[in-house]
Amino acid sequence: MKRNIKLAYIGGGSKQWARIFMNDLALTDGLSGQVMLYDTDVAAAERNCRIGTRIAEDPACVSGFSYSVGATLEETLRGADVVVISILPGTFSEMQSDVHAPEAYGIYQTVGDTAGPGGVLRAMRTVPLYEGFARAIERCCPRAWVLNLTNPMSVCTGALYAVYPKIKAFGCCHEVFHAQDFLCAVHHETTGEPLIARQALQTEVCGLNHFTWITSARYQEQDVLSMLPAFMEKYFASGYCASDPADPMLHRKGDYFQCGNRVKMDLFRRFGALGAAGDRHLVEFLDRGWYLSDPEPFASWGFYRTPVDFRVKQQRALIEEGEALAWGKKPIALTRSDEELMRMLMALLGGEKLLTNVNLPNVGQTPTLPLGTVVETNCLFASDSLCPVAAKPLPAGVDALVQRSAHNNNALLDACLRRDEALAFQVFMNQPLCAGLALADGERLFAKMCRDTAAYLTDWKGNWQEEA
Amino acid sequence: MKRNIKLAYIGGGSKQWARIFMNDLALTDGLSGQVMLYDTDVAAAERNCRIGTRIAEDPACVSGFSYSVGATLEETLRGADVVVISILPGTFSEMQSDVHAPEAYGIYQTVGDTAGPGGVLRAMRTVPLYEGFARAIERCCPRAWVLNLTNPMSVCTGALYAVYPKIKAFGCCHEVFHAQDFLCAVHHETTGEPLIARQALQTEVCGLNHFTWITSARYQEQDVLSMLPAFMEKYFASGYCASDPADPMLHRKGDYFQCGNRVKMDLFRRFGALGAAGDRHLVEFLDRGWYLSDPEPFASWGFYRTPVDFRVKQQRALIEEGEALAWGKKPIALTRSDEELMRMLMALLGGEKLLTNVNLPNVGQTPTLPLGTVVETNCLFASDSLCPVAAKPLPAGVDALVQRSAHNNNALLDACLRRDEALAFQVFMNQPLCAGLALADGERLFAKMCRDTAAYLTDWKGNWQEEA
Amino acid sequence: MKRNIKLAYIGGGSKQWARIFMNDLALTDGLSGQVMLYDTDVAAAERNCRIGTRIAEDPACVSGFSYSVGATLEETLRGADVVVISILPGTFSEMQSDVHAPEAYGIYQTVGDTAGPGGVLRAMRTVPLYEGFARAIERCCPRAWVLNLTNPMSVCTGALYAVYPKIKAFGCCHEVFHAQDFLCAVHHETTGEPLIARQALQTEVCGLNHFTWITSARYQEQDVLSMLPAFMEKYFASGYCASDPADPMLHRKGDYFQCGNRVKMDLFRRFGALGAAGDRHLVEFLDRGWYLSDPEPFASWGFYRTPVDFRVKQQRALIEEGEALAWGKKPIALTRSDEELMRMLMALLGGEKLLTNVNLPNVGQTPTLPLGTVVETNCLFASDSLCPVAAKPLPAGVDALVQRSAHNNNALLDACLRRDEALAFQVFMNQPLCAGLALADGERLFAKMCRDTAAYLTDWKGNWQEEA
Amino acid sequence: MKRNIKLAYIGGGSKQWARIFMNDLALTDGLSGQVMLYDTDVAAAERNCRIGTRIAEDPACVSGFSYSVGATLEETLRGADVVVISILPGTFSEMQSDVHAPEAYGIYQTVGDTAGPGGVLRAMRTVPLYEGFARAIERCCPRAWVLNLTNPMSVCTGALYAVYPKIKAFGCCHEVFHAQDFLCAVHHETTGEPLIARQALQTEVCGLNHFTWITSARYQEQDVLSMLPAFMEKYFASGYCASDPADPMLHRKGDYFQCGNRVKMDLFRRFGALGAAGDRHLVEFLDRGWYLSDPEPFASWGFYRTPVDFRVKQQRALIEEGEALAWGKKPIALTRSDEELMRMLMALLGGEKLLTNVNLPNVGQTPTLPLGTVVETNCLFASDSLCPVAAKPLPAGVDALVQRSAHNNNALLDACLRRDEALAFQVFMNQPLCAGLALADGERLFAKMCRDTAAYLTDWKGNWQEEA
Repeated sequence: MKRNIKLAYIGGGSKQWARIFMNDLALTDGLSGQVMLYDTDVAAAERNCRIGTRIAEDPACVSGFSYSVGATLEETLRGADVVVISILPGTFSEMQSDVHAPEAYGIYQTVGDTAGPGGVLRAMRTVPLYEGFARAIERCCPRAWVLNLTNPMSVCTGALYAVYPKIKAFGCCHEVFHAQDFLCAVHHETTGEPLIARQALQTEVCGLNHFTWITSARYQEQDVLSMLPAFMEKYFASGYCASDPADPMLHRKGDYFQCGNRVKMDLFRRFGALGAAGDRHLVEFLDRGWYLSDPEPFASWGFYRTPVDFRVKQQRALIEEGEALAWGKKPIALTRSDEELMRMLMALLGGEKLLTNVNLPNVGQTPTLPLGTVVETNCLFASDSLCPVAAKPLPAGVDALVQRSAHNNNALLDACLRRDEALAFQVFMNQPLCAGLALADGERLFAKMCRDTAAYLTDWKGNWQEEA
Repeated sequence: MKRNIKLAYIGGGSKQWARIFMNDLALTDGLSGQVMLYDTDVAAAERNCRIGTRIAEDPACVSGFSYSVGATLEETLRGADVVVISILPGTFSEMQSDVHAPEAYGIYQTVGDTAGPGGVLRAMRTVPLYEGFARAIERCCPRAWVLNLTNPMSVCTGALYAVYPKIKAFGCCHEVFHAQDFLCAVHHETTGEPLIARQALQTEVCGLNHFTWITSARYQEQDVLSMLPAFMEKYFASGYCASDPADPMLHRKGDYFQCGNRVKMDLFRRFGALGAAGDRHLVEFLDRGWYLSDPEPFASWGFYRTPVDFRVKQQRALIEEGEALAWGKKPIALTRSDEELMRMLMALLGGEKLLTNVNLPNVGQTPTLPLGTVVETNCLFASDSLCPVAAKPLPAGVDALVQRSAHNNNALLDACLRRDEALAFQVFMNQPLCAGLALADGERLFAKMCRDTAAYLTDWKGNWQEEA
Repeated sequence: MKRNIKLAYIGGGSKQWARIFMNDLALTDGLSGQVMLYDTDVAAAERNCRIGTRIAEDPACVSGFSYSVGATLEETLRGADVVVISILPGTFSEMQSDVHAPEAYGIYQTVGDTAGPGGVLRAMRTVPLYEGFARAIERCCPRAWVLNLTNPMSVCTGALYAVYPKIKAFGCCHEVFHAQDFLCAVHHETTGEPLIARQALQTEVCGLNHFTWITSARYQEQDVLSMLPAFMEKYFASGYCASDPADPMLHRKGDYFQCGNRVKMDLFRRFGALGAAGDRHLVEFLDRGWYLSDPEPFASWGFYRTPVDFRVKQQRALIEEGEALAWGKKPIALTRSDEELMRMLMALLGGEKLLTNVNLPNVGQTPTLPLGTVVETNCLFASDSLCPVAAKPLPAGVDALVQRSAHNNNALLDACLRRDEALAFQVFMNQPLCAGLALADGERLFAKMCRDTAAYLTDWKGNWQEEA
Repeated sequence: MKRNIKLAYIGGGSKQWARIFMNDLALTDGLSGQVMLYDTDVAAAERNCRIGTRIAEDPACVSGFSYSVGATLEETLRGADVVVISILPGTFSEMQSDVHAPEAYGIYQTVGDTAGPGGVLRAMRTVPLYEGFARAIERCCPRAWVLNLTNPMSVCTGALYAVYPKIKAFGCCHEVFHAQDFLCAVHHETTGEPLIARQALQTEVCGLNHFTWITSARYQEQDVLSMLPAFMEKYFASGYCASDPADPMLHRKGDYFQCGNRVKMDLFRRFGALGAAGDRHLVEFLDRGWYLSDPEPFASWGFYRTPVDFRVKQQRALIEEGEALAWGKKPIALTRSDEELMRMLMALLGGEKLLTNVNLPNVGQTPTLPLGTVVETNCLFASDSLCPVAAKPLPAGVDALVQRSAHNNNALLDACLRRDEALAFQVFMNQPLCAGLALADGERLFAKMCRDTAAYLTDWKGNWQEEA
């Protein structure tokens, strides 16, 4: 195994992912080298650098990394073996518009960063940045492995490949894990056997990031999907939440990231496959009449919409905590997360193989979706190698839904690469969440959202300005 | 050229198409043989047989056909060289439900026989009949050319190929002609040159029946599509109707089959390609928020919804006229229609080649749509030969819309062939006209429409019965 | 129709094609403009310019073109509406090696300019030139129609698209016409009806240039292919040559461009489809054991190998004749050729549509061959439009043969674009004419042929030099 | 894990594979159930049943299986969880003709059971049997996993899918393992590190059975393919045989199943990918001029042709040994083989996952080969699941070679399913080993080989009889 590496972390001032990453890296035995952080918010990168250094000095740390801040993107990337990209395109002020502006037209979004009007706008400001990353990677570290953590994941990963087709990039996301955890609970409840870890579950996975589907789930010789009908008879009405069984609809707690899995169960009942993401993600790929007509869906469906206010507050707390960690006012407490980044990394460097789901351009692994579309399926990580595993065709009814979003994603990537505002608007109107929206209303909304976020759309022609 | 043929006409009692067909046949020089009519409504077939015989005896008739009524489907088809299928699945009572039942949920349909809730239900009762036709054709006249005139055209034509893959069938429809006529008018208005015939126009055509698109239109060296922006500046606001220039929005006349072409122009402005069907067809493939939110769209968009009451009345008049024609109370007056059936027929029999648009399974002519999907493109008719002409890729925004309906059609055909009611409902909910419909409302509506038309869904399991 | 055009002729000093072209152009009513000739052999271009001017002044000339010689490629192309490319890559001295060097290893070539060892070497010196043409066309006349007449036609046309994917180029060749003429004779002999013109025949055509196949041939309602078995019973043993029925094996005449059609008939008997090129072309795509094991194949198969000596002599005569024409010592005698270039041109400029076979990248017209492969099928010429017509799948046995050459062509284009000598050699060894060749012999032969033609392979690395 | 199963073994009297299988099964902990053997040679099946029972009673046996002989195919298959098919189509007398008849025309075959003239004839008598197996499996055990061990493996496996498309069948073969062993030796020789087991090597595998290619080989972070050039500098001239380093060309030993790997090294030098089968298999997919022009290739290339005489002798010894084992005259000595059947089985039953190479219809795993072609790539075995892993595209020169054999295989399967003798002959002539063969010689040879084996071609029309 390659044991001495350079890691470049773009978005290195990130408040959440970078810390999880540094934690997990500290607990990964047998690796050493340097981590270089790069962020347009230099202060944040420096704070994380300080935290990273403290983590590396922690007695519990078993790897050997030094941390520094890269002065430029190029310096950061030069000679990197691995690049992690995890950025926020714009600020929460732009996300405020992405998520909440559509509410004026009765369009309610739960997350607003992948599909729906918010996803379109976010792609419009992210793709130009990703084009720059791809060009810099081709120049500075053409053979590095590139892990993309940013949303909209499919479109961002697609942008990397559009600019530099030989890039070794993939998008990784933990949403499928939650669906696997749910299935573990189903298995446990049904069989009475001890709760198994999701890694012991064998799932076939196919779709688009945040709109992935599990078409087969087995534990040893048991077919776990076939346990769902009986399970649902018991739990569909009330919802089911492993983390809070007493309040499965989360009425009291108002937890933005949990759900009662009622949408998942309802979709399984209808389509025979399991939506493999949190309910809050799945609903954004479906007609808004289905699960998002009500601004307070928790009452009926058991999930919450995440307000951007909450994110602002959360971020403030993370910064404070970061300062405390950076300056030694809070002790470092290393704990391994449920993320699989380290296992992926180890496999790519020549360690143990890993089978897990990630996002890659379709070379045939999803037989019905267009070649080149960035899709999420099982993939095999091995030494300097990442191969998609062929997925079974989706049920026809699911395929029709996924096709729509796949073509939307491809057209959106196209629109962003060409800065084609008319096409971006066409994709905007074709979002399932925009179902029933009048054309004139759509035009007004799109123009407003562009104007709201114009500071980060500098590279576009900006025809929306005139309507201001 | 083959000059002595047997023609089988399934749906031979049809009130409209069969008469146009018999008229055009009478005016086709150099052909002779027999026409055998078959219809479950025997009286209607006999009436048409009588009319056909009178037409054949008319001094203006230049072909030599005798007419008879087939006792069975098999007798009718046996040894046929050409089969025409033009049926009404069910009665206008079923169509009443198809078209008007969805209005209770704010879903307004202009035609209701191809896309939208009405199209789904109509497919459900038509596909089983078409399976029977395909089996009988394979048995009785496996090498005959089969012209399908029935809607939903893509799904019906697809059913023929699903059952008998070597069938020589195609679907033909005149809707594209109307868009060509519109372009001839655009050319005339723009250049001041004399109005040209649509046959002189060269168009590239691609899409699904009733949702076809013209991506290029030329007259000699002139690019007619490029004349549209200036034309639209003059006529978009007011609408443009060649048949009634003084009342382009048809407010006074209330003509169900004309339109002011405002939808066509609006779509061209947005997408850069011309929808090649009457506006009343195009809108049924688009989100209902776009052009069909208003039950009286003529006020803003210049087209009418065709009420089934009108069809009932019209049919009654046609029957009366038919009786008069059959019994010599009304003179035969032969006039050639604008339809191309005869020219297609002549080409297939070895006469002059013909290039025109018809519906065939995709073997590569539409590079982005799934292979096997029944698509409408230019095709070349020649002696015992029908070859699709490769179409240019659609603009990305149009492609995304067409893909959705293509996958819907394919899934619907699948659902009908397997009598899979759950899948049929999934396709129902994925219709653009069902945008914004709540799942529970959709279930209620679908079940009602099934129950309304259950007399013609005898071959299905009929789970909707229980909810009655 | 567009009537005033600029025509650029690259290879404007050509001795044969340019004169045919100028002749046909003179007889094309209603066109005018300028023809600019460009050739690296300036004297030859000037000679042709002089001939063109005399032709244009001839009383029989009905078009209005002026002729000039372009000083540079760029000047010639600038603003051109139509570009014709018809070059000889290298001289006959290179062709001498292409055609005759392999004889030392028992490899006999009839033409040696498309397939076989000669075709590979010719591609290696032609593709770099075509890359230059494509770049210049993109710069100087990006929307011009480009007619390629040079062999190897598939690879040359593919090079144009590889460099400038939006080019409007196609390859045209008259070989299919000869097979059509043969079928007209078959029809005439079989039915006793008057000999029909090949344009009246309707053929379905599919394959690679010089290895094209006719899978269906009809005249009006008659199936002409079905007449072949009886015809062959009469003529297979003796051979059949319409131009010299008394000596169908051409023993006396030794005509290099005619044949007794025995190969064509033998292949039809075996495969059920008709090879649509002269026998001398077809055999170069087949294992050399089949029809080319004998250096004098005319004895058994009725076709000759064209020696390059003959071409040298013929060229000398053409130059002399050219001088005479240029300086008024020989009268201009305008006669229309059987070529279709003018009809193609007229159709593209907005005149009458034309259906004929040409070479275009596969976008789906040949369903089994790889997308992008330059294939020859029927195509529809119309105003500023050229659309392939979908071809029926080839019989499985023919498909296997065509696939091999298609993959060879694609790999050869790849090798030439990347100047990859190892890959070029791999394609060389995979030529059907190299069947049974030992690897070491192949290496020697390939190196010798490269050295022989090294003066025109200046752009390659030239590893073969070392072995000299 | 499912632990109690029924195993059906078709060809249950096999002398070699069944014993290996019974051995490995005995050493597989935690499995039990019944094994039912079926063979048209009932005595042989009974002998194996007796051996199996003795093995099951051996103290070293850790599984719990009982053995019986099935009276009919149907009885054997009924309710089976796993089916193994390992038959000899015909007898060694037919194989005698397959392998040696072509020698009269200078065609030398090393194995003669997959490609080349012998492979074609063997397919012609095997496919009809496999159609029967597929039909019986669909009827008797539609959800069983079916392991095919019979050659020609691609065509046989393809026949199963052609008849019963939902079959869960795959072909497995150990040839790739030998190439992996070779790479382990290369690694060992190059690095001086201890010899690693082939399971520790990570290879990317793509191609057709017996003509598979390794495009990437890594051990931890080391690139093993990149070690080959230096290794070859040392060993190419002499050959390299791990099992007999002192006599790498095997001159003394004359071992039919080993090789000096010179072909493998020569191909790697030329194409940049490693042929992943014994040299004796690889050469049968290549032009006979390359490595098989010499009847004694061991002198130059270090591999032997396996004479059928040897097989006859070997079989006789195996029968004798079998009798001794069956009647207790020879002790059972259980040793685990290098085969992976048991690990595959355990994975499918819900045990540990396994990544290995097997043969499956292409659903996209080999992006350049036709969909449906049976290809050999890495696949992931898991509980009731077998998913192909996407393979990287082959180098262009290798792809051209593999395409040819892929199209041959597909056409051959087609020919066999339709009993189309003309097409079978076309595929015969298109075998690389038939390079340079004259058509008339080919016809004579094909007819002779058909007549030689006519007793097992009863289901064909048998037009070759007339020529006897």
